[in-house]
Amino acid sequence: MSILKWFSITDRHIKKYLDLHLAPYGINSSQHLYILKICDQPGITQERLIEDYYIHPSNVTRALNTLEEKGYVRRESCEEDKRKWKLYPMDKAWDLQKEIIRVKKEAEAELLKGFTVQEQRDFSELLKKAGKNAIFNIPL
Amino acid sequence: MSILKWFSITDRHIKKYLDLHLAPYGINSSQHLYILKICDQPGITQERLIEDYYIHPSNVTRALNTLEEKGYVRRESCEEDKRKWKLYPMDKAWDLQKEIIRVKKEAEAELLKGFTVQEQRDFSELLKKAGKNAIFNIPL
Repeated sequence: MSILKWFSITDRHIKKYLDLHLAPYGINSSQHLYILKICDQPGITQERLIEDYYIHPSNVTRALNTLEEKGYVRRESCEEDKRKWKLYPMDKAWDLQKEIIRVKKEAEAELLKGFTVQEQRDFSELLKKAGKNAIFNIPL
Repeated sequence: MSILKWFSITDRHIKKYLDLHLAPYGINSSQHLYILKICDQPGITQERLIEDYYIHPSNVTRALNTLEEKGYVRRESCEEDKRKWKLYPMDKAWDLQKEIIRVKKEAEAELLKGFTVQEQRDFSELLKKAGKNAIFNIPL
């Protein structure tokens, strides 16, 4: 069975897991990563977020609008360049950060069940290599 | 960087590649696999398709409706059980089959650029192992 098929199946199940476990907080699998990043780097610009995640800008904007509406994130226009926005976590985001990390770790543990330490290392390395190929060879 | 993040990034780029290269035929990344399967097993039931791909039944139904409208697939009610549908490829599906296989191979080659033969083997095996964990440990 092909690599593409297994990517698709696995990613669908991962998203389902995140959706299910993040639903109580009103966020989904496509929004959680912004909360993590903004808690990690308060004041990060929207442009930088787009660069870091290789996500289409319109999808990033939509996700951030939702997180702002739900009170997780606030925007401030950038002092140096008024056309840009800086993003800051609200208290709700800080509260959720630990929970998101926990859910992601659990999902990862489900995926890697039965892997030896060496297999985990190999898989992580090869997956990253494939991912970098995807980023550089396949434009979004 | 986490395994989950690389899954998400890579799968998004794969889907983009398939969408782009299948768009001239009026289909997208979430529909192509049904054409392949139905060409491979003409007469396959809709239930069997759902089992094979671990996709939510309502999504399968929607994709098949689109493929039927576009003239790729036709449905026949099952002789043995009138509540079930058998799926058959139309001429347009046979014509597209080879093209889909080519596009998928190209996408896979992009992903695996720079991998040694051994790395390709390891990656394929570990990805399948993670995928089976996802299927059995994470319900859709």
